[in-house]
Amino acid sequence: MEFELINRYFAPLGTQLGLGEFSAGDLGIGDDGALITPPANSQLVVVTDTSIAGVHFPVSTHPFDIGWKALAVNVSDLAAMGARPAFYSLALTLEQYDQAWLNAFSAGLNAMMQSLPVDMSGASFPLIGGDTTRGPLSITITAHGWVERGQALLREGAKPGDGVFVSGQLGEGGLGLSLALAGLQPRSVDESLALAKLNRPEPRVALGRALIGLASSAIDISDGLLADLNHILQASNVGVDLSADTMPLSAAVKAWAGSDPLKPLNAGDDYELCFTLPLRYWSRIEQLSSQLGIKISHIGEITAELGCRLNGELLVPSKQGFNHFARD
Amino acid sequence: MEFELINRYFAPLGTQLGLGEFSAGDLGIGDDGALITPPANSQLVVVTDTSIAGVHFPVSTHPFDIGWKALAVNVSDLAAMGARPAFYSLALTLEQYDQAWLNAFSAGLNAMMQSLPVDMSGASFPLIGGDTTRGPLSITITAHGWVERGQALLREGAKPGDGVFVSGQLGEGGLGLSLALAGLQPRSVDESLALAKLNRPEPRVALGRALIGLASSAIDISDGLLADLNHILQASNVGVDLSADTMPLSAAVKAWAGSDPLKPLNAGDDYELCFTLPLRYWSRIEQLSSQLGIKISHIGEITAELGCRLNGELLVPSKQGFNHFARD
Repeated sequence: MEFELINRYFAPLGTQLGLGEFSAGDLGIGDDGALITPPANSQLVVVTDTSIAGVHFPVSTHPFDIGWKALAVNVSDLAAMGARPAFYSLALTLEQYDQAWLNAFSAGLNAMMQSLPVDMSGASFPLIGGDTTRGPLSITITAHGWVERGQALLREGAKPGDGVFVSGQLGEGGLGLSLALAGLQPRSVDESLALAKLNRPEPRVALGRALIGLASSAIDISDGLLADLNHILQASNVGVDLSADTMPLSAAVKAWAGSDPLKPLNAGDDYELCFTLPLRYWSRIEQLSSQLGIKISHIGEITAELGCRLNGELLVPSKQGFNHFARD
Repeated sequence: MEFELINRYFAPLGTQLGLGEFSAGDLGIGDDGALITPPANSQLVVVTDTSIAGVHFPVSTHPFDIGWKALAVNVSDLAAMGARPAFYSLALTLEQYDQAWLNAFSAGLNAMMQSLPVDMSGASFPLIGGDTTRGPLSITITAHGWVERGQALLREGAKPGDGVFVSGQLGEGGLGLSLALAGLQPRSVDESLALAKLNRPEPRVALGRALIGLASSAIDISDGLLADLNHILQASNVGVDLSADTMPLSAAVKAWAGSDPLKPLNAGDDYELCFTLPLRYWSRIEQLSSQLGIKISHIGEITAELGCRLNGELLVPSKQGFNHFARD
């Protein structure tokens, strides 16, 4: 019975159904399943991400941040496909029924949803159903988006000569995680930003939408720039030449990286987009950057020669991430 | 790296993408998300169900059966909405990388999928993505189906005078669970069937599809006939008068129920459909039953008077399930 009460905390997250492009006959929480009418000429994008306490976030993380981030990491995958977030389901496993925890967790989900850019249609991003069970804390979200038919941003499609771009700053999630795990208070604005990026990442939905028709490939760099860019290289059957001094790194991240310039490029938990763009569209990036208020850096070029190079030197995957060939 | 290898077991479950009504540009496993083109004039049905070892199935359950059932319970919710299963995502949390376990588990998922009725379109039911993480065994599946626009079977819609029907036999899941928990071998054909129903339930997809345009409401009785029928009563703002001697109970279930005739009506884990039908369609049921090879029983009538009655006696919810009013 307690676990039925949980729905009290989640029902308000589903009330936006019926607005925007949802149809009159659409249904959210309350029947055997949700019922959604697809908008015309669209493809459905489906992404799933599980967050487990102690694996994906420190056990000390505030439940508001757990809720925010569990949803944000899914939205980041939608953004990387160029989709607009449409609705999501939530499978929540909890050790016990804790009202304060549930209140903060659902407030985090709600705040994440409210932070998203509102579509021309007025569509929001309702919770449409899910499951609550008893067990070790675990959150699985399956998020759904819509993208114009045939227009989704994929990992394949990068061509030799395309520029490689990345949004925001690199290594902030990694720095934030090292501060959180050490239980350290931030000592600078940069460190505060890094902690905020770790706990409340802001998925690049507007950027993903704007890149439709421009980018030849895109991915979100939740597993680190080099690992995720490598997915683009493999799917597109190309290589890359990166330029070390164009990498967007804050002073705090540089200090954290110390003598290892690859550290921020291997660190995960950056929910930025890495994308490739044909030469003819490079001039649009500056305009896009100022329009969206997002820093966008040009960090290298796609090459016909396979492999990932930094300042011309080949990097290879190792247990600690991508490393210089000779030092592996 | 081990957890990346897990995808080897699941990639074959996604290869049906591209058949039937999937479009050429549709994508399954391998990018940031899956990409699905909706069929014309359809609504998407989304259901989510989590299965946790020791909570939703005995820890001794064979991994083949864990895979089968984790998918089947989701398909049962799709069937209750009248939807045809279309694709699903899987979030699997595992303590350790165990090849034999993964092999059997994925075979169970595959066998469940293969058991489903093939649509006229030749569409199958591919796995389109998900997440694998390390932790206590837990399976969350989000399954998706398509239903003709405006035609989904809902919990609301039952009207006074409608007949109440149920497919299959009641209490088999409950009997099966009691045998499994006691570690007992089945002593009769009925008990063997009960164990099979517990571990490899066969969701009523073809029945759900056939009820479109006929049933005034429907639900699957995974939480027990009385609890789930009560959801129909509440959503439809009606009551019911059930007839005890029309309940479909095997001899083994009757023996298990002993002196408590309500036991099989309160037991969960029956993945049958309970539905209501206006008088003018009752004659169709016999034909439907023989056509689909499914036993369908007429167990009562919807009443304007609220509440659930068995042979005229009011039943009320208690901690042990619905019970006689005087004995609660």
